Amino acid sequence: MPDEIRSHPQIKHYASKRKKSPEEICLDRAFHHSAMKQLPRNRFLPEKMGRPDIVHNSLLQILETPLNWENNLSVFVHTQEDQLITINPKIRLPKNYTRFIGLIEQLFLEKRAPLEGDPLLIIQKTTLQQFIKKFNPSKTIGFSRIGEPDLLRNVANSTAKTSHPMVIIGAFPRGHFTKDTRRLLNEIYSVDERSLDTWVVAGRFVYDFEWSIGIAQKRIESRQ
Amino acid sequence: MPDEIRSHPQIKHYASKRKKSPEEICLDRAFHHSAMKQLPRNRFLPEKMGRPDIVHNSLLQILETPLNWENNLSVFVHTQEDQLITINPKIRLPKNYTRFIGLIEQLFLEKRAPLEGDPLLIIQKTTLQQFIKKFNPSKTIGFSRIGEPDLLRNVANSTAKTSHPMVIIGAFPRGHFTKDTRRLLNEIYSVDERSLDTWVVAGRFVYDFEWSIGIAQKRIESRQ
Repeated sequence: MPDEIRSHPQIKHYASKRKKSPEEICLDRAFHHSAMKQLPRNRFLPEKMGRPDIVHNSLLQILETPLNWENNLSVFVHTQEDQLITINPKIRLPKNYTRFIGLIEQLFLEKRAPLEGDPLLIIQKTTLQQFIKKFNPSKTIGFSRIGEPDLLRNVANSTAKTSHPMVIIGAFPRGHFTKDTRRLLNEIYSVDERSLDTWVVAGRFVYDFEWSIGIAQKRIESRQ
Repeated sequence: MPDEIRSHPQIKHYASKRKKSPEEICLDRAFHHSAMKQLPRNRFLPEKMGRPDIVHNSLLQILETPLNWENNLSVFVHTQEDQLITINPKIRLPKNYTRFIGLIEQLFLEKRAPLEGDPLLIIQKTTLQQFIKKFNPSKTIGFSRIGEPDLLRNVANSTAKTSHPMVIIGAFPRGHFTKDTRRLLNEIYSVDERSLDTWVVAGRFVYDFEWSIGIAQKRIESRQ
């Protein structure tokens, strides 16, 4: 919850209903739409904020997949405020949205979750540029309607040919990557004339990628 | 909310927090787990109840897709209590889970939503058998780990060859189709050795089906 709107009546009311203080709650446009109108536009891109549901749905679509079960997936979430969440592939994400929000709120407070044992989620201050430098991908690929038109399946096939690719998908409801982000991308593709939801692109890419590297075939052959 | 547990303290507390009466709220295991232990097992299959999040996630994954945009998808939700929800393909489903639950609660109360204008959701008492008779599919296909092992993509390809197929996916977290349901299925396939989430199977099937009937190819060609 950004400082700037913590004392807004809508936020205070929502926080008290949740028995938390305003700084402990996760911004969510479904509940904080009016308050969000007061976010200063010189510091924030409000139209790209307050949609943890997009992250939740997308994670649900890619974490419980053969690609992840076979240890071929690393997932990170980067926020506008340069917080980077590292997701342990072994996580069993809460399917229920309210429980997911509770987990994310705990994460922002404690910087890791759970507090004891192997961390399943870690959060740290990192710019996208710093993260890419550290991850050192062989190629960075983004999806955006202003990219080059191509079939998602073709993109997955060519991506699978490089050793250590990074795919970046915008988890915001509309708009495009910022100029700063575009500069970090080697290739940008547009896979449909209409805007596809983040979780649809993410889920389909993971599925296509499984085929590209032979996981789908391998898993069925082992059963026949 | 089943009659049998409407007076359970957990349900009464949850309903009053939501400012609704117990009969107006949607059963959700994430919030009503204790109360659900009192559901009579001779009338209900409690392990297959209380997961509207599965329906929500699955609908999000298939409704905003080229297959639906091109009018090649009809989606229905059938409940254990033989309520059949018919979904207008033009619906813009609430992405936020809490909003979705509110919509479903309104639907059960009013039998349609919205109250005025073109209905986007309708609910009526129908058994699965009655519904299949009325829909009159050329073939009914189900997914279950006790089915015949095959690649989801192969199943989509063969399904696309029949004129008016119906695909049935269990929207419950574990367990199998009942005997009564299995009797209504012409073919049952198992597409992975591990149990896949409903929304993963649904999303991937829709995507494969788009390829089977040439939608993916057509949409990209129109842009090149």
